[in-house]
Amino acid sequence: MTAKPRVAYLGPPGTFTQAALIARFGRDSFELPCSSIEDAFSEVEQGHADFAVVPVENSTEGIVNNTQDCLVDAGVRIVGEIVVPIEHHLLAASGTRGEALTEIASHRQSLAQCRKWLRAHYASVPVKECSSNAEAAKLARDNPGVAAIAGQLAAATYGLESLANGIQDQQHNSTRFIVLGRQTPPASGHDKTSMLVYAANRPGALFHVLEPFEKLQISLTKIDSRPSKKAAWEYVFFIDFEGHESEPQVQELFTRLADCTEAIKLLGSYRAFEGVSQP
Amino acid sequence: MTAKPRVAYLGPPGTFTQAALIARFGRDSFELPCSSIEDAFSEVEQGHADFAVVPVENSTEGIVNNTQDCLVDAGVRIVGEIVVPIEHHLLAASGTRGEALTEIASHRQSLAQCRKWLRAHYASVPVKECSSNAEAAKLARDNPGVAAIAGQLAAATYGLESLANGIQDQQHNSTRFIVLGRQTPPASGHDKTSMLVYAANRPGALFHVLEPFEKLQISLTKIDSRPSKKAAWEYVFFIDFEGHESEPQVQELFTRLADCTEAIKLLGSYRAFEGVSQP
Repeated sequence: MTAKPRVAYLGPPGTFTQAALIARFGRDSFELPCSSIEDAFSEVEQGHADFAVVPVENSTEGIVNNTQDCLVDAGVRIVGEIVVPIEHHLLAASGTRGEALTEIASHRQSLAQCRKWLRAHYASVPVKECSSNAEAAKLARDNPGVAAIAGQLAAATYGLESLANGIQDQQHNSTRFIVLGRQTPPASGHDKTSMLVYAANRPGALFHVLEPFEKLQISLTKIDSRPSKKAAWEYVFFIDFEGHESEPQVQELFTRLADCTEAIKLLGSYRAFEGVSQP
Repeated sequence: MTAKPRVAYLGPPGTFTQAALIARFGRDSFELPCSSIEDAFSEVEQGHADFAVVPVENSTEGIVNNTQDCLVDAGVRIVGEIVVPIEHHLLAASGTRGEALTEIASHRQSLAQCRKWLRAHYASVPVKECSSNAEAAKLARDNPGVAAIAGQLAAATYGLESLANGIQDQQHNSTRFIVLGRQTPPASGHDKTSMLVYAANRPGALFHVLEPFEKLQISLTKIDSRPSKKAAWEYVFFIDFEGHESEPQVQELFTRLADCTEAIKLLGSYRAFEGVSQP
């Protein structure tokens, strides 16, 4: 019997980040809500947590640039990814009537994502911006007449009832989260690898970074450039590609990249979420 | 004599986005604060505003992925960029003593950016997360004993005094903003062009997108991949490069890219901010 894992996440409880945590670890972990992405990283780095879950794309709850900044200096590995569909509901304390709402609270981005629906159904009710959807849910719990726009987990966490389900204007909206840990999981056959590449600032620099991928027929799934904070290097590229760091072809890639870049940093290899059903 | 321009921006007043607006347009425009990035785009699209200013990188005030999403469908052009240094101050109503603070309010990311300083100076004072730094400044104005972490413009806007200046842990932090409009400015000799490139999902797709840049020796300054929302195309790349759309070499680039991609969309050509002093 193994001990329950300790999992840090970007809180407060009831956020989509906690929903991602539960999708990965079930209800059988010690959950450690953190007030920032930096704190979640640091809980794993310092050994207070075994894992951490933080958003990397399209988050409704934080500035995900933070996650990329943290990865540059991180002493931890990416050991997994989770994609969670974002579905918003209009939530209020039990017994609240939709006609009696005095205020609708949520994170700015969630309000924007439900704007057309709000205009059609509650055009005259004022909206209030909160620092997260979970904060809005807390507000709705404590103030009769206030409704929150948040996910199903926030409803369960704060004991709210749904006045309307799936009210986001765009369907099929989802957020990607990564799992941080200290040990790289073994190859599963459906893996992705994340890395940082530092390149000089000259025309064609990125082109030469991509040449080894092309020659080895390794498929990139994501590339993002960010201004480097190291003075000597102008750019850092965040690159995700298909494959696991233990595979010979990927090791050959690292050798070739070392020749044509200023520096590389391996962030981790992990099972790809998409197209793979979770165990 | 020309009429004052009408400029929409991501509000509320006192944010770094308004500071960027003032850096570009001075105090001589009609400023239209918007509650979302989407609204700022739409003010220009519908002709209610001549320009809009929105953050694109490292913002302390919003989810900048929004800006990229808006650009995909935008009927407006990028006509300029502004880079603003982010400097945080500890602000409170006139006469407030630092020893008497009961709460420190700010946006989550600003609190994170000043964490070491807060730990060293106000470890025992509780923090409160707000939806923006300007909201925190408003809270400080209305509640004796509450201080806000925000920029100099928020201090001026809400009549607050500084208890401490430049309290962010990392110096040289800055945010990039773009200016939206309806007409491409003429070439200045120091221009950048932004575009979207849709590419098929196959190994080497990005490599072939970059080949024309390499052949024509055009320097990329930024590349980001985002999942495409158009079903037929798997990827969309946001690419910034040096040059103006009116230059023959850039027109040749567009011709070559049309041959090796699914589609391209020009977002605009504008004077590069860095290394160029503002008029």
